[in-house]
Amino acid sequence: MELYSKHISKLIEQLGRLPGIGPKSAQRLAFHIIGLPEAQVQELASSITEAKENVHYCRECGTLTDQELCPICANPRRNHRQIMVVENSRDLAAYEKTQKYEGVYHVLNGAISPMLGIGPDDIRMKELMQRLQGDVDEVIIATNSSLEGETTAMYISKLIKPTGIKVTRIASGVPVGGDLEYIDEVTLLRALEGRVEL
Amino acid sequence: MELYSKHISKLIEQLGRLPGIGPKSAQRLAFHIIGLPEAQVQELASSITEAKENVHYCRECGTLTDQELCPICANPRRNHRQIMVVENSRDLAAYEKTQKYEGVYHVLNGAISPMLGIGPDDIRMKELMQRLQGDVDEVIIATNSSLEGETTAMYISKLIKPTGIKVTRIASGVPVGGDLEYIDEVTLLRALEGRVEL
Repeated sequence: MELYSKHISKLIEQLGRLPGIGPKSAQRLAFHIIGLPEAQVQELASSITEAKENVHYCRECGTLTDQELCPICANPRRNHRQIMVVENSRDLAAYEKTQKYEGVYHVLNGAISPMLGIGPDDIRMKELMQRLQGDVDEVIIATNSSLEGETTAMYISKLIKPTGIKVTRIASGVPVGGDLEYIDEVTLLRALEGRVEL
Repeated sequence: MELYSKHISKLIEQLGRLPGIGPKSAQRLAFHIIGLPEAQVQELASSITEAKENVHYCRECGTLTDQELCPICANPRRNHRQIMVVENSRDLAAYEKTQKYEGVYHVLNGAISPMLGIGPDDIRMKELMQRLQGDVDEVIIATNSSLEGETTAMYISKLIKPTGIKVTRIASGVPVGGDLEYIDEVTLLRALEGRVEL
């Protein structure tokens, strides 16, 4: 016997496909959604379809936006000669929240991963090299501090160095407020190697 | 400056309203959804609206179903003289998974909670009393072992006892496979009180 009726099972299955949502959460979410007022359910469903319909990649930096050119690329007060390379739009948002970075971005939409079969052609590397034909002073590589992120950073820096453009990498080390006791050894060694004089 | 474009923000906001989904998860889910193929996004959105349109409460037991009468209430081989009272459809599903219970259910769709201002009239108590007008041998109270669940169990048993129908409560105690060390004191005391001779 099926535990749930067809429509409930289908909703649970669909929700269970989303990242980080296990079978139990999917079940809980499904019952919650069914219990919501009609209007709220419509709003949820339409926010999904409308986001998909209207959001695409910025033609300049590749971040997700609903305009042709994202607000950052379209902003003449940003420093368009300084490009920060990030893996995805969420990482871009993380740096934007600091409200201190005044340059522009380049979103790779991925990272090189031989394990997953993702090579340089699968991320927006060609687009980055094209942008470097213009006037660029510095490329700041802000890919993640993971194996994939580091591999990507190395690859990009090797490719750019011959052009003479300055390439930098964001620092790795102990996070601010981090308790040494709970930080992994690789990070601790990185923090030691990257020590600065006081 | 807004971090995300309108449609992304709206989707993040909508997802963030779901239970157990914080701002970070909502952001992650939103970007995941936008990155899915068109057809999968449509399927997700339609599973939401279709579940809401087609699922309603069983007219007999009150569980969520897409038929007039749920498959359990419609099944003549179930024992309709034994009614298990549960708080919601998820709890019903939990007992159905055991595949051992042969009676039927009554779903309260809530529990009495003076704290939240939920009284007996806000849960399906009247419908339960109406069902007891028919031929019923036993009412098994399987509300949760929480303050609200216990309050509801007490209330129901007091109401039913004068009718002469047998009222039982599922046992509370140490979960099977549970390590005593990690179990709270109230449960340990319950398990002691409910001890059985070997």
